[in-house]
Amino acid sequence: MNVMNTQQAISELIALGKWIGAKGWVPATGGNFSIRADDCFVVTASGFDKGALNNKCFLNVNSAGDILNGNGKPSAETALHLALYELSLDTHCVLHTHSVAATVLSRYIKGDVFSVSGYEMQKSLTGYTSHQDTLSIAIFDNDQDMNRLAQTVRDYFSNQSHKLQHGILIRGHGLYAFGQNPAQTKQHLEGLEFLFACELERIKLEAAL
Amino acid sequence: MNVMNTQQAISELIALGKWIGAKGWVPATGGNFSIRADDCFVVTASGFDKGALNNKCFLNVNSAGDILNGNGKPSAETALHLALYELSLDTHCVLHTHSVAATVLSRYIKGDVFSVSGYEMQKSLTGYTSHQDTLSIAIFDNDQDMNRLAQTVRDYFSNQSHKLQHGILIRGHGLYAFGQNPAQTKQHLEGLEFLFACELERIKLEAAL
Amino acid sequence: MNVMNTQQAISELIALGKWIGAKGWVPATGGNFSIRADDCFVVTASGFDKGALNNKCFLNVNSAGDILNGNGKPSAETALHLALYELSLDTHCVLHTHSVAATVLSRYIKGDVFSVSGYEMQKSLTGYTSHQDTLSIAIFDNDQDMNRLAQTVRDYFSNQSHKLQHGILIRGHGLYAFGQNPAQTKQHLEGLEFLFACELERIKLEAAL
Amino acid sequence: MNVMNTQQAISELIALGKWIGAKGWVPATGGNFSIRADDCFVVTASGFDKGALNNKCFLNVNSAGDILNGNGKPSAETALHLALYELSLDTHCVLHTHSVAATVLSRYIKGDVFSVSGYEMQKSLTGYTSHQDTLSIAIFDNDQDMNRLAQTVRDYFSNQSHKLQHGILIRGHGLYAFGQNPAQTKQHLEGLEFLFACELERIKLEAAL
Repeated sequence: MNVMNTQQAISELIALGKWIGAKGWVPATGGNFSIRADDCFVVTASGFDKGALNNKCFLNVNSAGDILNGNGKPSAETALHLALYELSLDTHCVLHTHSVAATVLSRYIKGDVFSVSGYEMQKSLTGYTSHQDTLSIAIFDNDQDMNRLAQTVRDYFSNQSHKLQHGILIRGHGLYAFGQNPAQTKQHLEGLEFLFACELERIKLEAAL
Repeated sequence: MNVMNTQQAISELIALGKWIGAKGWVPATGGNFSIRADDCFVVTASGFDKGALNNKCFLNVNSAGDILNGNGKPSAETALHLALYELSLDTHCVLHTHSVAATVLSRYIKGDVFSVSGYEMQKSLTGYTSHQDTLSIAIFDNDQDMNRLAQTVRDYFSNQSHKLQHGILIRGHGLYAFGQNPAQTKQHLEGLEFLFACELERIKLEAAL
Repeated sequence: MNVMNTQQAISELIALGKWIGAKGWVPATGGNFSIRADDCFVVTASGFDKGALNNKCFLNVNSAGDILNGNGKPSAETALHLALYELSLDTHCVLHTHSVAATVLSRYIKGDVFSVSGYEMQKSLTGYTSHQDTLSIAIFDNDQDMNRLAQTVRDYFSNQSHKLQHGILIRGHGLYAFGQNPAQTKQHLEGLEFLFACELERIKLEAAL
Repeated sequence: MNVMNTQQAISELIALGKWIGAKGWVPATGGNFSIRADDCFVVTASGFDKGALNNKCFLNVNSAGDILNGNGKPSAETALHLALYELSLDTHCVLHTHSVAATVLSRYIKGDVFSVSGYEMQKSLTGYTSHQDTLSIAIFDNDQDMNRLAQTVRDYFSNQSHKLQHGILIRGHGLYAFGQNPAQTKQHLEGLEFLFACELERIKLEAAL
């Protein structure tokens, strides 16, 4: 991974935000994005339309969440982004989105994991090579105490049998997709959202049997 | 709130209309918008595509609904806009839209309120800080006598336990979103429409259990 | 109605086609449009993408369907357009579209009419002033013999109790919307498609009760 | 069929990809396209967004799949494209897409064929002239061994009662549409996707009876 400087990171997130906004996955100023840059984490400031970001919508924070510089205030969810970066040095980008499918499926599924198999699209997720494997995405209950939620995520992945990859779902809230670079993270986001959209339809169809 | 002059209000509503039209929430010349300006209420004239408004599509009316100037005739629903402005001096913008989700859910729900909890997106509505709270939007039966419907809405909110905020639904008709300024009103509209879209899917999924 | 000349009619249909194509209602070169011009009927030629029409995609025909001039061959459904024009001198535009909702609902409904009440959007259809009225759109079984289908439509509306207005559905095929001018026809199309989309969702929701 | 040279083939596939990408049918770098050119097969390289292709995203291969020139590596599914070209000299273009509807329906249907009748849109598929006919598209189980899957497809169509036309579905994977030229292949793709979208809704509606 070619580590980015701050301005490169901002440019990447503006472009990703435009693409994500057109998909309808960051409604009502929801969602937040970040990149691990060469000397800080670049995070979106709270309150902006993430589909129409500009240079003034970003802050730099350190790994403790302290603001190094930038405008406005960081999203409350910054703690969760930082936990994901702390859990793996390979994680260089986090995209948090609110799609209808991710929001509704994470409520519909009562257990703690979204699991699918049988989809070719699983191969869009790094490391998957067959539709016959089972792809699992952990679901965490939503919590307005973001530090506590970040700790819950840390604790969960401290269990070595829980593999930190692709993304996590927060129930009734949305998806955090992540990856080794912005392009891979976008691919994880798009692949997972496709699978969520398929499952939404598949569950309704199966009820029609 | 920095009160707008008439021309600023018109510019805001043209921009909002373009965004709303692209969402598909004002089909077939449906919907109507207004802003409380410095010396009048700016309202959309009837019969125009609200997604493609121009300077000639607006009228100025006073609080009694009398036309002060402008082209065409005000929407029949102007009485309802004025009732919402009368009920709270904090209301500076009203956006009335017709989405499939708002139309269908307001018919599906037999009671007088749309209620949700468990959604992070509830926090897009001013005053909400947790997904654990319950968000309620009053539903009124549709009525072609708009003065009578406006009075029903006034009477309902004269009950102090009924909090006037974010929006109201008219059954089989659509949403009236409102707020302290155009940006907040847009946010309420977008947040509520996301929740309607989620509930539409959630109800169908639950039937599949 | 200000009767158009041929070139005005073509310009109107190109613009309407662009708008309709963006809605996804004329897939796979489906659909066809026409206008009653001052001295002929302007109809779309077969085989073109109706969302990307140009001056070369039209023919002029007389009331018997004879080609007066133009390129290509008229749509097989021209006979049905002409029947609608013959049935009412007030009809000046016909827009035939293929939406998923119109196609599926016209199959789901086993009877010969699509009926709704309770929707404010019914008022987008000329002559309707209340959501409490019942709006009815006749459904005809599809027939590859377009002359026979045109005659079936003529016979149906020769019954004075069957009011020729807004549109007709052909089962598993799509909608023919019509009106006194292109703008009104577009409004009928958009209003009816909104109602079809609502009913599609409403029926699925009701099953969830 | 006017056989294309390599550069014409590339231009056609770039334009088709842009159109297909806008439909949402090639998410997460999924899908792949090819054309039988005058002296080779032009295929998309793996790993690119098929909605934003450029001249550098293509390879030329021979009928055995050997790379003649070009950048990157050919899609793993090239073997399946080549099998379709081998099965019929009339096939000049193959478009492989991943829509939600094709993916989900091909899983929902337990048998080996997607069959519909009663849709006018069946006539968008070459050779169909009536909604009363039955349109059938073979469904093959997905297989990560593409040579084996290609052989399965070859074996299936070596049975003369199995007509090779329009497209095939791979279960949980997507559609391969094909035709005698790019325009016809696009029409088959669009017509089939419309039918998949209709069946998705029809099945859910029927459950509501």
